[in-house]
Amino acid sequence: MGGLVNAAPAGTIEDRIRLSPFHTWLDLRVLEADASQLRLRATWREEWSNGDSRHSTHGGIVAALLDLAADWAIACAGGQTAPTLDFAVQYLRAAKPGDLVVVGRVLKLGRSVTFAEAEVLDSDGETVAVGRGTYASFTKAAG
Amino acid sequence: MGGLVNAAPAGTIEDRIRLSPFHTWLDLRVLEADASQLRLRATWREEWSNGDSRHSTHGGIVAALLDLAADWAIACAGGQTAPTLDFAVQYLRAAKPGDLVVVGRVLKLGRSVTFAEAEVLDSDGETVAVGRGTYASFTKAAG
Amino acid sequence: MGGLVNAAPAGTIEDRIRLSPFHTWLDLRVLEADASQLRLRATWREEWSNGDSRHSTHGGIVAALLDLAADWAIACAGGQTAPTLDFAVQYLRAAKPGDLVVVGRVLKLGRSVTFAEAEVLDSDGETVAVGRGTYASFTKAAG
Amino acid sequence: MGGLVNAAPAGTIEDRIRLSPFHTWLDLRVLEADASQLRLRATWREEWSNGDSRHSTHGGIVAALLDLAADWAIACAGGQTAPTLDFAVQYLRAAKPGDLVVVGRVLKLGRSVTFAEAEVLDSDGETVAVGRGTYASFTKAAG
Repeated sequence: MGGLVNAAPAGTIEDRIRLSPFHTWLDLRVLEADASQLRLRATWREEWSNGDSRHSTHGGIVAALLDLAADWAIACAGGQTAPTLDFAVQYLRAAKPGDLVVVGRVLKLGRSVTFAEAEVLDSDGETVAVGRGTYASFTKAAG
Repeated sequence: MGGLVNAAPAGTIEDRIRLSPFHTWLDLRVLEADASQLRLRATWREEWSNGDSRHSTHGGIVAALLDLAADWAIACAGGQTAPTLDFAVQYLRAAKPGDLVVVGRVLKLGRSVTFAEAEVLDSDGETVAVGRGTYASFTKAAG
Repeated sequence: MGGLVNAAPAGTIEDRIRLSPFHTWLDLRVLEADASQLRLRATWREEWSNGDSRHSTHGGIVAALLDLAADWAIACAGGQTAPTLDFAVQYLRAAKPGDLVVVGRVLKLGRSVTFAEAEVLDSDGETVAVGRGTYASFTKAAG
Repeated sequence: MGGLVNAAPAGTIEDRIRLSPFHTWLDLRVLEADASQLRLRATWREEWSNGDSRHSTHGGIVAALLDLAADWAIACAGGQTAPTLDFAVQYLRAAKPGDLVVVGRVLKLGRSVTFAEAEVLDSDGETVAVGRGTYASFTKAAG
């Protein structure tokens, strides 16, 4: 694991992330958190299923993971989490049932607007989806 | 309510939508379903919260609603639900706690690719977010 | 034509738009400009062609028209043109050779960020492409 | 430069790219073309200017470069150029006057749909904008 944010243990950023009931429901765990990237694991649960015969994970779960990982990567890079202005997702392949890992990275940290991106990997390490968002770092509102 | 899909009761499309455990968790209900648009209501639950002081609904929930409503609007327009290739969301304002309504519409129904869009409204009828997606209607895989 | 911006003749907004050499090259003409929407015509030129056998207009031209019409619709709605933070385009069908009309509209005018959208129509009035962008209205820089 | 496409000289892919009058107008030159990426240079011209005091290059030009580089990277990776279904751009900073380099890469080459991305760099080597698109490789139509 790289240099931790503010020399604080990984648990600290995890604790902050898990203040959101949705993040707790996703059972997000911090695998790695430094200024260059944030790596989270989300624990599969049956409610993720999109109902197809393969029990693929719903694209909405994947999109949520991308957005939140990009947003919290901003916090790890020295910014603060911020409301998402917009987000674009490309779904490269279906996400089969199982835990997902999502890696967030900042593209450009700005005073007023920050661009960040993320990638979701399934339990085989295959990239399931990628996404990029624009975040309103000019405001104090929580993300 | 407009002409129902296949002259079937609204319950039928609702039943199909709720085959997905994620959709059941969102407690999706069909308010209106015809060839021109699909209107769904999702029932607020505490796990939706992003953890800010206003208990706003997490953007990931909003994105999921947009994507699934656009996808199922395709089914209502005579196509079939299909894997999302990509999706773009604009968050116009925070979604305060409460049930959300999402309206999906087809932009262009194609044999191989369909474009669709959706809009999420909060309990005051304000537009919270809009989104557009591209769907792979050339495949038989479920969405 | 609706109420003109600042009760000024359409030529005024057209003059401002045409200060950009790229806009002059596109030969943009204002067809309609009020607070609710901006309608522009761009004059076809051979350099627009993507080189296919149908001489379709290049998607890059279409994307540029969408972005600039959305941006200048902000000016018409009482804001100012502003740098585009990001933009997403859906190409519904090929744009055959000929002049194009683009209609821009504001989705939400904000002090710091404005969301706007646009649609490009070909000479048959068919929608060729749609797009949405996020604009940094917090800055004074030109778009 | 890596292994060239089909063991043909770089001029070949450049010749194909320049069949489009718009690409000739952009004066596109192939700097590098192999299966992993395509690197092009576009030659600045005054018509690119957005008309601001810094004579920044218009975002529409930048968007066009991103889209076409991603598309032609597909050709370099063994696919064929294909119509863009949709494209999303993030503008990280203004593009000052001068030639631009654009680098395209395939994210996932599919039989029916291909995802690709690109990045535009200014003459200082700074990333001006990034973009991702979805391409309809199932059709024979030119891009």
